[in-house]
Amino acid sequence: MSAESPWVGVIMGGKSDLEHLRPGIDVLKELGIPHEVRVVSAHRTPDWMIQYAQTAESRGLSVIIAAAGGAAHLPGMVASKTLLPVLGVPIPATVLNGFDALLSIVQMPKGVPVGTMAIGKPGAINAALYAASILSLKYPELRSRLGAWRQARTDEVLADRELS
Amino acid sequence: MSAESPWVGVIMGGKSDLEHLRPGIDVLKELGIPHEVRVVSAHRTPDWMIQYAQTAESRGLSVIIAAAGGAAHLPGMVASKTLLPVLGVPIPATVLNGFDALLSIVQMPKGVPVGTMAIGKPGAINAALYAASILSLKYPELRSRLGAWRQARTDEVLADRELS
Amino acid sequence: MSAESPWVGVIMGGKSDLEHLRPGIDVLKELGIPHEVRVVSAHRTPDWMIQYAQTAESRGLSVIIAAAGGAAHLPGMVASKTLLPVLGVPIPATVLNGFDALLSIVQMPKGVPVGTMAIGKPGAINAALYAASILSLKYPELRSRLGAWRQARTDEVLADRELS
Amino acid sequence: MSAESPWVGVIMGGKSDLEHLRPGIDVLKELGIPHEVRVVSAHRTPDWMIQYAQTAESRGLSVIIAAAGGAAHLPGMVASKTLLPVLGVPIPATVLNGFDALLSIVQMPKGVPVGTMAIGKPGAINAALYAASILSLKYPELRSRLGAWRQARTDEVLADRELS
Amino acid sequence: MSAESPWVGVIMGGKSDLEHLRPGIDVLKELGIPHEVRVVSAHRTPDWMIQYAQTAESRGLSVIIAAAGGAAHLPGMVASKTLLPVLGVPIPATVLNGFDALLSIVQMPKGVPVGTMAIGKPGAINAALYAASILSLKYPELRSRLGAWRQARTDEVLADRELS
Amino acid sequence: MSAESPWVGVIMGGKSDLEHLRPGIDVLKELGIPHEVRVVSAHRTPDWMIQYAQTAESRGLSVIIAAAGGAAHLPGMVASKTLLPVLGVPIPATVLNGFDALLSIVQMPKGVPVGTMAIGKPGAINAALYAASILSLKYPELRSRLGAWRQARTDEVLADRELS
Amino acid sequence: MSAESPWVGVIMGGKSDLEHLRPGIDVLKELGIPHEVRVVSAHRTPDWMIQYAQTAESRGLSVIIAAAGGAAHLPGMVASKTLLPVLGVPIPATVLNGFDALLSIVQMPKGVPVGTMAIGKPGAINAALYAASILSLKYPELRSRLGAWRQARTDEVLADRELS
Amino acid sequence: MSAESPWVGVIMGGKSDLEHLRPGIDVLKELGIPHEVRVVSAHRTPDWMIQYAQTAESRGLSVIIAAAGGAAHLPGMVASKTLLPVLGVPIPATVLNGFDALLSIVQMPKGVPVGTMAIGKPGAINAALYAASILSLKYPELRSRLGAWRQARTDEVLADRELS
Repeated sequence: MSAESPWVGVIMGGKSDLEHLRPGIDVLKELGIPHEVRVVSAHRTPDWMIQYAQTAESRGLSVIIAAAGGAAHLPGMVASKTLLPVLGVPIPATVLNGFDALLSIVQMPKGVPVGTMAIGKPGAINAALYAASILSLKYPELRSRLGAWRQARTDEVLADRELS
Repeated sequence: MSAESPWVGVIMGGKSDLEHLRPGIDVLKELGIPHEVRVVSAHRTPDWMIQYAQTAESRGLSVIIAAAGGAAHLPGMVASKTLLPVLGVPIPATVLNGFDALLSIVQMPKGVPVGTMAIGKPGAINAALYAASILSLKYPELRSRLGAWRQARTDEVLADRELS
Repeated sequence: MSAESPWVGVIMGGKSDLEHLRPGIDVLKELGIPHEVRVVSAHRTPDWMIQYAQTAESRGLSVIIAAAGGAAHLPGMVASKTLLPVLGVPIPATVLNGFDALLSIVQMPKGVPVGTMAIGKPGAINAALYAASILSLKYPELRSRLGAWRQARTDEVLADRELS
Repeated sequence: MSAESPWVGVIMGGKSDLEHLRPGIDVLKELGIPHEVRVVSAHRTPDWMIQYAQTAESRGLSVIIAAAGGAAHLPGMVASKTLLPVLGVPIPATVLNGFDALLSIVQMPKGVPVGTMAIGKPGAINAALYAASILSLKYPELRSRLGAWRQARTDEVLADRELS
Repeated sequence: MSAESPWVGVIMGGKSDLEHLRPGIDVLKELGIPHEVRVVSAHRTPDWMIQYAQTAESRGLSVIIAAAGGAAHLPGMVASKTLLPVLGVPIPATVLNGFDALLSIVQMPKGVPVGTMAIGKPGAINAALYAASILSLKYPELRSRLGAWRQARTDEVLADRELS
Repeated sequence: MSAESPWVGVIMGGKSDLEHLRPGIDVLKELGIPHEVRVVSAHRTPDWMIQYAQTAESRGLSVIIAAAGGAAHLPGMVASKTLLPVLGVPIPATVLNGFDALLSIVQMPKGVPVGTMAIGKPGAINAALYAASILSLKYPELRSRLGAWRQARTDEVLADRELS
Repeated sequence: MSAESPWVGVIMGGKSDLEHLRPGIDVLKELGIPHEVRVVSAHRTPDWMIQYAQTAESRGLSVIIAAAGGAAHLPGMVASKTLLPVLGVPIPATVLNGFDALLSIVQMPKGVPVGTMAIGKPGAINAALYAASILSLKYPELRSRLGAWRQARTDEVLADRELS
Repeated sequence: MSAESPWVGVIMGGKSDLEHLRPGIDVLKELGIPHEVRVVSAHRTPDWMIQYAQTAESRGLSVIIAAAGGAAHLPGMVASKTLLPVLGVPIPATVLNGFDALLSIVQMPKGVPVGTMAIGKPGAINAALYAASILSLKYPELRSRLGAWRQARTDEVLADRELS
């Protein structure tokens, strides 16, 4: 399936964000969702960002996951240049521990939404699952895989729930 | 189109949240997206909430918009009982001005995502637009309407951009 | 006394919360309060959570201590399905250091209360002591043990109060 | 029942806190829980506070609800002088909107717990309900009244849940 | 001097920001600094924003003052497309009172700076003064006018400093 | 001078606070200010705290430095039982890094003031200097020593101010 | 006594701060403490501020109360130029409600302390009482007046403590 | 060029701030901007600070970069004594991680602006770049060097943007 053209674009403001995103990328793989991973900096490469956002739909992408830290403008700016659903993952990249990125991503003005996830790794994983949930509208078999993934998590808890 | 069975379920923790959600419901109408609006309280009606979430997919819903204030558990709990994408709108219902609701909605643990929007009315409008964006995967003509809606906003700004 | 059916149910959103709860569980043991310890995830095992909360009273529990991190929904959701007093312990499980969990637990809307404790280990210990305080209404001899425990803490400070 | 000696002591740091507590006092009345209401200032009347806390149990009180704003020391100090369960209600009395009171009440060190409620009126109502929940251990008929109260809230939501 | 081509571009995310910026625009007038005022929305008119930033220098602008509220991306994005100094003014446009805008503007990653001012009107006035300070490098007579403006403020305080 | 009865009482909520207070105690020594150091817990030893505060003036103390973390009630409660000036030092003892202690100490209601210092070690040192400043009213030679101490700090900076 | 040269200097960053300080000035009057009230702006009149601080001691002042809002530099800067005790009152002058002023005043680095009071009016009143407490070291009869003032507040609460 | 008299003064409240400023100083070097680096403490050396600010313009400086932590008064006070543009860099020097310094620097009252940068190292680097941007008004060849520096950062991202 990896040869297929990507359904999800995973982009991040800088290469150092990758460690936070990795667990989410792993979930995309686990669920068999074709994807690409790119560094797209809103501030250092605004033209490339605009181009990425603008061509995303025509290149066949259905969902964009955008992660950034600090004054995290990437998710919102990409959302301003595409009609695809954009998921934002705040990265704890500054001394404010991702709190700045959370507000920069979630407090979008009316008109241009970003679906914001939790700060850091849990948010990266959840962005992947949310992308799967969105794509399930189009690819019903993905919903089964998503359901199975979630059931496995449930079973893990249930199997080990009695501590004393 | 209103006779059609709803694509989007708009739910809120209490009737007083309606004033914050109203502008979002208006956008759903404007975009011609069939929807239903319900009060579903995570804390006062947990069984009804579970039932709502559990039957949402089989009833034909594709997206759920869930709004709540304070310790806003509604979006996350609904997300735990459905594979549909859930959008969370934090409501400024307490003296903490929606900041409590924002953290209660966005900081979901890995495994069960909620696509979180801005606090209050901008978030309600954006949830409607985001729902449209998701539904466009399935209903391509909706993407055109969404594009037109967004273009109209752009044109509004451009028409009136020179202040002095 | 450990053979007795539990008076207190100690539940947590994930196994990794156990390290924060351990000192509280030790206090329950020290005070001779029969208890059980379970993993109950609001988001990964909502059905098991509902069942746990719903049957708690009939199984003989008198108090529930519920700990969770991030968007900590466990204490509030359990409280929505039982009339027993629920104590909430915010766990510092995210980069926001338990501040998110504190607001998610304490800012419950009117109608469904959670008695919220401090973030992390001090909160876990205090939840155990608070459970003892509640149970003392029914088991007066427990109040003496609680009083002795508190007196011992007082004596510790007094014995070592002169530093220079 | 009002002639009975009080089961719950409702105390507050200043008379101006009464407006925030009133809805909680009304719930105590509704549930038929004998109670007293007093102004007890930790800072202006420390001796009276100590005396209040110290004699609470012998005077027949079973639960204390303590409300305070700003550097809200009342709940924690009362808790240091009694083994009864103390419920703390943060009052939004300063420009920080009760956020200061919340942290001053909830972040108690290990050894002396306060069961903290939401800021302001929702917290006052919930303190009353929580007191009822605690007292139900001793007065089982109160649990029925509490259950009926909660059921009425559930019914209210269900009766009016369909908005459009 | 108003016939001269503008030295300072004052831009804002939406027309409703104008009330907060007005006092700053008045200071520009008072100091005789040629300027233009435009609505430029990062999210609704990204192309116009890019064009504005890209052509600013060649059109003769020397400083850009950019104001925005919520997830305030305008100042940072403009800064990414120009080498001119950009001043950011956080606008209190959401329930978070400009705190979100402050973090979104000031926490820029290394490489693309925004000179951030205080939230709201004081920030708008200071942005104008700061622009004057920068422009004084090129237009020394402006430094005298700026010095006189500041001296007048000093004299105002000194004239009325004895209250009792 | 150490044989003299103490002028300053340094108290702290727990022995673990000592590491934060140590640099302040060293400054008291350096300035030759007779002092005593005690553990006085507001919550674990309320009677001893009341007694300490109540007898402080008659025992010859002129200033009290009180340090505490979390829901830091010690400074405010001591201030409620003495007319001596009380200095409060917030200790970073919880996951909230002393922010909770700061609000619990500084937001005292009208009527009972605490002179609040910075969180942690800088606050401990400054409490000692502030005590010296207060005592200088009574012991003028102390003002000289304080002046010399401050001058030495100034000289240190000036001696080493040119970095490149 | 008002003809006497002032013991306390009350200064504020701007005339609009006076409404917040007024209740504190009234307490100084009530306690018969000679004082002066001045506008001294750290930013608009730095020279006058330095001069005020530098001559305070030689002019006979014993305590300085300094109030300021926003980036409140007045208390700390005055403290850097005098050995007298400086009390800081954070004024809620910006959209951040005095939270900015609180941190700007209290987080002084080691070496130059400011005794910080609560935000706004309670802080203004407490600064006056704290000044009285300091001055009592030198003027013992003031301690009696302070004690009487405090006792009156206690009596007020006690007289009206039974609400129902 | 290092023999030239400095265009930029880099000052900091204490020597320990140097590690945070170093990367910014390196950028000044890289861009060939003559500069000096000094310790100037607002609180420990107020006279030297005033003198530094007052003589900066006549000594040929064009921009001042001022860094400080905690109650960071240095940037604002320097700005009150010069008409040169002052850039403020909040240093994470306390347990509040630079959040205190950010508010102390950015929330300047109207009349005396400070161009505030991000907390810590990113802010230090950006202050250097912003200084370059300001100086480019006077030294056009610097704008080319600044443009090249920024282009290099863009190229770095573009060269390595495809991660998988």
